[in-house]
Amino acid sequence: MTRKQKREGPTDVRVVILAGGSGTRFWPLGRDRKPKQFIPISGRRTMIEDTVARIRPLVPLNRIWTVADSLRTRALRKVLPQIPKDNFLVEPTARNTGPALMMATARAWLENPAAVVVALPADHLIRDRKRFQRKLKAAVKVASREKALVTFGIPPTYPATGYGYIRFSRAGAVSAGGEAFYPALSFKEKPSLGIADRYLAQGDSFWNSGMFVWEAEAFAREIETHAPEIAPGWGKMVRALERGGRSGLVAAFRNLPALSIDYALMEKAGKVLVCEGDFGWSDVGAWSSLLEIWPRDSHGNVTRGRLLPLESRNCLVHNPGKLTALVGVRDLLIVDTEDALLVCSVDRDQRVKEVVETLRKTNRKKYL
Amino acid sequence: MTRKQKREGPTDVRVVILAGGSGTRFWPLGRDRKPKQFIPISGRRTMIEDTVARIRPLVPLNRIWTVADSLRTRALRKVLPQIPKDNFLVEPTARNTGPALMMATARAWLENPAAVVVALPADHLIRDRKRFQRKLKAAVKVASREKALVTFGIPPTYPATGYGYIRFSRAGAVSAGGEAFYPALSFKEKPSLGIADRYLAQGDSFWNSGMFVWEAEAFAREIETHAPEIAPGWGKMVRALERGGRSGLVAAFRNLPALSIDYALMEKAGKVLVCEGDFGWSDVGAWSSLLEIWPRDSHGNVTRGRLLPLESRNCLVHNPGKLTALVGVRDLLIVDTEDALLVCSVDRDQRVKEVVETLRKTNRKKYL
Repeated sequence: MTRKQKREGPTDVRVVILAGGSGTRFWPLGRDRKPKQFIPISGRRTMIEDTVARIRPLVPLNRIWTVADSLRTRALRKVLPQIPKDNFLVEPTARNTGPALMMATARAWLENPAAVVVALPADHLIRDRKRFQRKLKAAVKVASREKALVTFGIPPTYPATGYGYIRFSRAGAVSAGGEAFYPALSFKEKPSLGIADRYLAQGDSFWNSGMFVWEAEAFAREIETHAPEIAPGWGKMVRALERGGRSGLVAAFRNLPALSIDYALMEKAGKVLVCEGDFGWSDVGAWSSLLEIWPRDSHGNVTRGRLLPLESRNCLVHNPGKLTALVGVRDLLIVDTEDALLVCSVDRDQRVKEVVETLRKTNRKKYL
Repeated sequence: MTRKQKREGPTDVRVVILAGGSGTRFWPLGRDRKPKQFIPISGRRTMIEDTVARIRPLVPLNRIWTVADSLRTRALRKVLPQIPKDNFLVEPTARNTGPALMMATARAWLENPAAVVVALPADHLIRDRKRFQRKLKAAVKVASREKALVTFGIPPTYPATGYGYIRFSRAGAVSAGGEAFYPALSFKEKPSLGIADRYLAQGDSFWNSGMFVWEAEAFAREIETHAPEIAPGWGKMVRALERGGRSGLVAAFRNLPALSIDYALMEKAGKVLVCEGDFGWSDVGAWSSLLEIWPRDSHGNVTRGRLLPLESRNCLVHNPGKLTALVGVRDLLIVDTEDALLVCSVDRDQRVKEVVETLRKTNRKKYL
C-alpha cells in the first residue's frame, strides 16, 4: 500500500551533480583550481550554473546535491550559494563515480527508498533544454515504475573513439511520457576507429552520456546482486550516513576500488534501459568542440575577445579583453590568459593534456 | 695647404643616424610611439642603442647626430642621454631621407667642409661589428680622398624583391685600408622576382643598405650638379643653419619634395663607390627575419619567453614573462603584448602592416 501511494503521487527526486572533475583539456583557461565546470565556456554562466539552471524547473533547490572532493566543494559552495549547505556531498577519497554515486544514493535511500536519483555530469552542454527536461521527467517515471537503471544515450554523429558506447535493442522497449526506453544490451569501452565505424553503420548504439536515473531501492538491489566489487560499501555507507560524522564514510571509501559507475554497475546490472538523448548534447570535451558551439564568422572563426582576421579561417580565439590579429593562419586554437598562452592545431587538442602533464612533472605549479 | 693638412690628420667625421622610421611591421610590439628602433629586438638593447654602440669606438659622442621628427627626437633623447642635446637634429617636415641628409650634411659643411658624414639607419643589425668598423674606417678614408659618395652594398643571398639593388663594376675599383671600393653603375628599385634572379646569377649587384659616407663638400658639389629636385634646398639650409632658429629650416623643408637620398642623389651622382657590406647585415625587416637572428632550438623554434613546444617547429614566439605552449603547429609568428596578440603565418608577415592600416582606418588608436 505504501509503495502504491508513492507511485501515484509526484515522484520524490534527488538530482546529484557529479562536480568533481579535474579536466586538463581546457588549459590554460582551465586550471587545477578552476576546472571546466567552473568556467563560462559554453555561455555566459559557468557550466555548473548552467547544469543547475537546467534542472531547476524539475526539482526544488533542496533536492539538488553535488558530489565532489572537499577542495571542489568549497568552490561549488561559492558558485552555488542558493543550494543548502547540507546538499554538498564530500567524497573523502577520490574513487571515481562508482563509490561517489553509491554514497549519494545511500543518502537518498535513507530519506526514502522510493526516491529517484538523477545523476548528471556538471560540465556538459545541452542545447535543447525543453526536450531534455521532458525526457528526464519520463526517465524518472520509468525508473520508478520499472525498477530499472535508466540512462541517456547520445545518437552518434561520427565514429568517435573518445566515448564509450551503449548497444541497445529496439525490441522490448517500454515507454513513458511519449518517450521510448530501450533495453541496453552492453556497455562498450572506447572503441577503435574500425569498431566505432561499425557501431555507427549498424545504428544500434548510442554514446554513453554519463547521465543516469534510478530508484534508490532498485539501485541497492542491483548493487547487491551485480556489483561485487563495490557492494560491500553499500551497507557501510548506509550505516555511516545514519550515524553521521566523517569517520565511517572515510573508512567505507578507503576500502573501495576506484571504479566508474559504468564499469562497477551499469554494464553488469540486470535491468538497464536507455533513452535517446537527442537534445543537442555535447560534453565540450576539448577546445575544438567550441568551434561547433560558439557562433562562427563568415570564415569559420570563433572568438571571445576582439578579432582582426586577415586571410584566416577556422580558428578559435579565447582572448577576452584583448585584440587578436590573425594573418594567414587556419585551423588553430588560440587561448591567451594572464600568465600563459596556448597555440594549438585544431586536430591536436587532445594533446593539450600532455602540456599539463609536462608542467606537473616539471613542477611548474603556477601554471597548473 | 689647409686641405692637405686635413688629409694627413685624422679625418673629421660626423655620424648621422637616421632615426625617424615609423615601421609597422613589428606590430603589436612596435607601435606608433615605439617603432622598431626603440625595441630591443635583435639583442638586449634597443636597436638605436646598438647602432650607437657600434660606431662609438670610431667617433666621440659629440660627433654622433640623429635626424628625426620632433616626436621621435623626444624619444631619442630619453634613450640616448649620453649624446649632447644639440646633436639631435629635428626635421621640420617629413621629406624622406634626401632633405634630412641634406640638412645634416649642411650642418657638417658649416663646421668643416672637409668633414666626412656617415649616414646610418637606426634599425639595422650588424653581426660582425669589427669588420663593419674596419670597412667604415676605410670608407671614410676613400670618401675623403676620392671625393666620391661611398655606400655599402650587401651581398645578396637570395633573389629578394624587397630591396633596391646597386649594380657595380669590378673594373676601376680603388682600395683603402685593404678594402675594395667598386664604381657603382646604377641604382635599381625593388625588382620583380625574375629580374632579382638575374641580378643574383650575374653576381654584379649588391642590395642597397642605406648606409652612406661622403665628404660634406663633395656632397654639396654632387647636389649642385646632379640633384636638381633638391639642389635649391642646399643654400637655404646652409643659410638657415648659419642664422639659427627654426623658421628658415621650416621654409626650406616645406618647398622640398619628399625624396629618398637614393632617388634624389645617389642614382644620379657623378662618382659613387660601393664597398661590399659582408659584415652580417640584416635590416630586420619583419618578424620572420628574427627566425634567422635569434637562437633556434632543435626544432627551429625561437623564443623570447618560456616555451613549451609539442610537435611544433619553426615558430617564433615573443611573449616575455609568460609561458607559451605550442601543440602541433609550425611556421607561425606569435607575438603577445599586454593589449594585443598577433598570430601570423611565417610567409605572410609582410601583411602585418595591413593589420596596422586596418586599425588606423577603423580608428582603433589604442592599438597603434
